[in-house]
Amino acid sequence: MAVRQDAVGNLIGRYEGTDSASPALVIGSHLDTVRNGGAFDGNLGVMLGIELVSALRENDVRLSFPIEVIGFGDEEGSRFPVPMICSRTMTGLIDAVPQGVTDAQGMTVAEAMVSYGLDPARLKDAARRPEDILAFIEPHIEQGPCLEAADRPLGVVTAIAAQTRQRVIVKGQADHAGTTPMLLRRDALAAAAEMILAVEKRGAAGSGNQVATVGQMDVTPNTSNVIPGDVWFSLDMRAASNEIRDRLAEEIRFDIRQIAERRGLEVSFTTPQHLAASACSPEIIGRFAHAIEKVTGEPAPQLLSGAGHDSMAMAGFCPMGMLFIRSPGGLSHHPDETVLVEDVELAHRALLAFVKEFQS
Amino acid sequence: MAVRQDAVGNLIGRYEGTDSASPALVIGSHLDTVRNGGAFDGNLGVMLGIELVSALRENDVRLSFPIEVIGFGDEEGSRFPVPMICSRTMTGLIDAVPQGVTDAQGMTVAEAMVSYGLDPARLKDAARRPEDILAFIEPHIEQGPCLEAADRPLGVVTAIAAQTRQRVIVKGQADHAGTTPMLLRRDALAAAAEMILAVEKRGAAGSGNQVATVGQMDVTPNTSNVIPGDVWFSLDMRAASNEIRDRLAEEIRFDIRQIAERRGLEVSFTTPQHLAASACSPEIIGRFAHAIEKVTGEPAPQLLSGAGHDSMAMAGFCPMGMLFIRSPGGLSHHPDETVLVEDVELAHRALLAFVKEFQS
Repeated sequence: MAVRQDAVGNLIGRYEGTDSASPALVIGSHLDTVRNGGAFDGNLGVMLGIELVSALRENDVRLSFPIEVIGFGDEEGSRFPVPMICSRTMTGLIDAVPQGVTDAQGMTVAEAMVSYGLDPARLKDAARRPEDILAFIEPHIEQGPCLEAADRPLGVVTAIAAQTRQRVIVKGQADHAGTTPMLLRRDALAAAAEMILAVEKRGAAGSGNQVATVGQMDVTPNTSNVIPGDVWFSLDMRAASNEIRDRLAEEIRFDIRQIAERRGLEVSFTTPQHLAASACSPEIIGRFAHAIEKVTGEPAPQLLSGAGHDSMAMAGFCPMGMLFIRSPGGLSHHPDETVLVEDVELAHRALLAFVKEFQS
Repeated sequence: MAVRQDAVGNLIGRYEGTDSASPALVIGSHLDTVRNGGAFDGNLGVMLGIELVSALRENDVRLSFPIEVIGFGDEEGSRFPVPMICSRTMTGLIDAVPQGVTDAQGMTVAEAMVSYGLDPARLKDAARRPEDILAFIEPHIEQGPCLEAADRPLGVVTAIAAQTRQRVIVKGQADHAGTTPMLLRRDALAAAAEMILAVEKRGAAGSGNQVATVGQMDVTPNTSNVIPGDVWFSLDMRAASNEIRDRLAEEIRFDIRQIAERRGLEVSFTTPQHLAASACSPEIIGRFAHAIEKVTGEPAPQLLSGAGHDSMAMAGFCPMGMLFIRSPGGLSHHPDETVLVEDVELAHRALLAFVKEFQS
């Protein structure tokens, strides 16, 4: 491959096809991971791209189109609180160096680029033209337990979930835990408990196309002998489509308001995050499903990706699709994150089948 | 009254009766309150004792027995994390200066006594002999909403609640909130939510003789996009008798273990506090009920005290009883804590009726 680094730090290898004027099939993922993370999140997808080209080269196979393998420079937002700077710059979603954010040492994104040898003023040079890219495919560890639970090595992603994050603020009345009879209480924590169970129930009511999670909670005054007067908790809702997510969020807010009203408490909501779903290309879904079935001998499981990926940045730019590789224990963002060697071998063979078929 | 301060700092006024050899009727409460508290918790009971003696003196009434009015030096444990040092020293439950505890400035109890002019070595001199005390009665604000809800100014306390404080530790599995399907989760917070509702339900199942509260909670990792793996919460259970409290605690632990088992989580318990109920003297309950009915014209409401009081230190020492005065809004331990003047007047008249009848 001819290898270059673009203006935002993405590493790009290009393996020419027989028609050098053809747009390229781009395969890749990200090179970074989270603090205290594992070795496979991101990097496995880049390695599978390199192995794909290596296998083609060894067999002297040239496709009609070029293949580009890309290692995106940043996906997680671990250093700066802005995820997917590099992929979003490539697709034009970011056209200037992010301002007003620094890393833990107080360094800005521009300073970090300079210290790495990049010119912040040339950031936009990393932007690609849609007409130069046939499609983007991202092999990635699942980071969840679905493939393991189904006893399958590979799956094809249908969409990256729509996501809404809300904060629910419950206002009751703090009172003495010893002197206030049960029926005269306005207990914000007991109300929140009922709300959390409603969230869990609504999340589970869908057919696997949605999840709803309360992950964070803060109780005031948080003292064992005082009935909690104030509670806030986070609400993370994700679904296969914007419509499913919006309906889920509406049902959950309805339940929460009803619980508050019945208990005589006040409740309010804020919405720190509201992201649309990124649908994968139906054509690529079909091609991946076919390739997976070919190498595994079984129909390909279709999955929703609950986690975010660089593919979200590509979705509006070119046809996009993802191949998921089983995560033992569903574990990710952890030093024990791993994959099975035989699953990676199957992924490699599925990608080879995919590109060969893509040509035809 | 002849006034003295005892060796632990209690302030004691004595109004002699016609028989100076008779044991004394002791009336009082505590002089301290909590930080940012109100003016009536404790002090109102001491003032009512002084007013009682003042009324007797103005009318030249001498009873057969002496009356002692006591202002206990410490009840709340606000400065040192040891409540009721002064009343417990008087009844012999504490016979040495508490060791190993300091106030916020690092001063020990002994140092505080010296700086106040007391001799720590003479602490035991504050201990009284049971044969010198006829009974102890404590007028106190209710600190709860029951009398207000019943539209009654005064009530007689039947017992100070038995209390158990536990810590419930729930161990689930932290997972990605986006990639883990609802049915594959072991969500420690959702389990805790179900447990909190069980606590609330069990607490409310009694006939007003018990309360159960979850006031404190800690979630790990407490991040909006991670399913909580670990939660602990406090459990405060109080009831009119040890038996009711023990049954309540057993039912709640049963529910909690069932919920954990059904959800595939681990649960464990610690017990930082386990206090027996302090029953009021049936004779004093009857006499207070009679006095209250006499001055209010209505049957006296009988209440369980969910909060702790100096009377707990007196319960095993001499016949003990408490008169509750309505707390507007149920409010206490707050600068807005108050009483109605007409309620205090009724309490004064009830105490006068009580002591006059006590003589006969």
